[in-house]
Amino acid sequence: MTCSARTALGPKLVALTGGVGGAKLIVGFSEVMAAGDLTVIANTGDDFEHLGFSISPDIDTLMYTLAGLANPETGWGRAGETWSFMDATAEIGGETWFRLGDKDIAVLAERTRRLKSGQSLSQITRHLCRQLGVDIEIVPMSDEPVRTIVETPGGPLAFQHYFVRERCRPAVTGFTFAGAAAASPQAAFVRALEAPDLSAVIICPSNPFISIDPILSVPGVRGMLAEVGVPVIAVSPIVAGRAIKGPTAKMMAELGLEPSAVGIARHYAGLLDGLIIDHADGPLADEIRGLGVAVEIADTVMTGLEGKIRLAATAMEFAQSLGAELRDRRESGDERQSA
Amino acid sequence: MTCSARTALGPKLVALTGGVGGAKLIVGFSEVMAAGDLTVIANTGDDFEHLGFSISPDIDTLMYTLAGLANPETGWGRAGETWSFMDATAEIGGETWFRLGDKDIAVLAERTRRLKSGQSLSQITRHLCRQLGVDIEIVPMSDEPVRTIVETPGGPLAFQHYFVRERCRPAVTGFTFAGAAAASPQAAFVRALEAPDLSAVIICPSNPFISIDPILSVPGVRGMLAEVGVPVIAVSPIVAGRAIKGPTAKMMAELGLEPSAVGIARHYAGLLDGLIIDHADGPLADEIRGLGVAVEIADTVMTGLEGKIRLAATAMEFAQSLGAELRDRRESGDERQSA
Repeated sequence: MTCSARTALGPKLVALTGGVGGAKLIVGFSEVMAAGDLTVIANTGDDFEHLGFSISPDIDTLMYTLAGLANPETGWGRAGETWSFMDATAEIGGETWFRLGDKDIAVLAERTRRLKSGQSLSQITRHLCRQLGVDIEIVPMSDEPVRTIVETPGGPLAFQHYFVRERCRPAVTGFTFAGAAAASPQAAFVRALEAPDLSAVIICPSNPFISIDPILSVPGVRGMLAEVGVPVIAVSPIVAGRAIKGPTAKMMAELGLEPSAVGIARHYAGLLDGLIIDHADGPLADEIRGLGVAVEIADTVMTGLEGKIRLAATAMEFAQSLGAELRDRRESGDERQSA
Repeated sequence: MTCSARTALGPKLVALTGGVGGAKLIVGFSEVMAAGDLTVIANTGDDFEHLGFSISPDIDTLMYTLAGLANPETGWGRAGETWSFMDATAEIGGETWFRLGDKDIAVLAERTRRLKSGQSLSQITRHLCRQLGVDIEIVPMSDEPVRTIVETPGGPLAFQHYFVRERCRPAVTGFTFAGAAAASPQAAFVRALEAPDLSAVIICPSNPFISIDPILSVPGVRGMLAEVGVPVIAVSPIVAGRAIKGPTAKMMAELGLEPSAVGIARHYAGLLDGLIIDHADGPLADEIRGLGVAVEIADTVMTGLEGKIRLAATAMEFAQSLGAELRDRRESGDERQSA
């Protein structure tokens, strides 16, 4: 870990995340804990090759956001970006449906070059983070390629074809994660989950199907989370039946799932110890508790830096309280066993 | 050939060229002859891989110049270029000694991607020219890599390291063309030299050592030129002992050669039927003629479009007159043989 030399100031967290929504919460964590105490596991199911570049959208969104370089309006891409490359690509008849900014291409070209020279995605991510002054460890879920495929009535679509080119218009009937069976979780991911001082795993308010499920599709990850021994807590990406950003609610409806915090709890059945839901969804708390999932009610929309910090602090307190409960239960279980 | 469908309006020319200086004369030719009558053979000895891109500086200078996209101040690169990629590359600690503009990268990325997919440099050049509306055929001297190495007292330098990174400061002691022995001239180059209606070969006023010699280093090229049966005419890149642009005169001095039009004639000994020299070098004409090379005196500085057109027209007239002489000599030779 790049930050192993930093003083650990508090409980260690592992956060599973996609891009925009998750990055907001990660910013919150970065403000309330020591960088070395947080390991961010990034979805790489969105990754693809385009115009010759190896693109890792979620890693870059996290990296740019934490470096203070992200475009605050879009949530993805860089602030003050220019688009000459894209204009000149159009001029030579190249594909323009996926917008690559001129500054962004510096990072893409460096990643592509290093991958071709045999470096791993995690090594490259570590290098880029260091160069951009990001001291929180961003770990790709796997160094092997896992590619999200969106199943639609018209046939399967590569993720970015669905997400960007088709603007999420096709109905989804399911997802597959090509390459997952042959992939293994990145070593730093495994190490972070096995750390004796780990206090919780946070599932960020990212799209469960296309941001979190790809991470869970990597062989061994579900098993490790089931046996991690610390609370696994999600923040619902659905507030009052709608996704704060992106197609989560649309996908849930198309898949015949309830587009609500209850639907999120059901989706993560068997994995979750706790779910943080928005005040707007307070009335759903008991139904979720009925599924055996503890509930914390908070402001999950994360407006401004203050909102991000508040939600991160809430998540940490919730984790501590659930952790204490887990330990109590374990000890009483031990007592029963020894009785 | 891309332009085979165009009406041929006059004598067919093959022009051997490097970047900036040669491109000027090619612009002149493009104004006085049908595009389909001109085959431009581009030096690829400058090509290199940098930041993951496959860069062909002379091809791109020719292409941008003919497309009207070149930066008129530098002679290389594109007009109205932006530099965000370069700034962001510096930010992540990447190499910045070779400046790649954002628009330029669109072409580089497309070339790189297509080369990786197995297309040849000549196919890709044809595609890019078509997309940019360049109807003159630009043919890489070879589809196989040939790389100019500059020998210096401090050891060999890859061409761009010498030319750009070291700004031509090291003294040169010689040149090698790595890969040349295994390369073959591009098929369209061979076809153009073998065309029955070829009227002349023009060696543009490019640097003889680093722009023209790489072309001549490709096995078979010297032999084809010796037997081409039409005049081979060079335009001296040295005027009044100085190069119009670049390190030609400096190199000649370092190599112990006379930095003059006479030195140019000597350098191309055995290849040239004629040399076009500048008015400023008129006094050298007899010495050059003494080497068995016909001389035409012209304004070779090519100021403005008019200057380029005038020099191109002069070259064509010179070629016609030398061609007539060659035919006369051949016929009288034939008569002698049959006598």
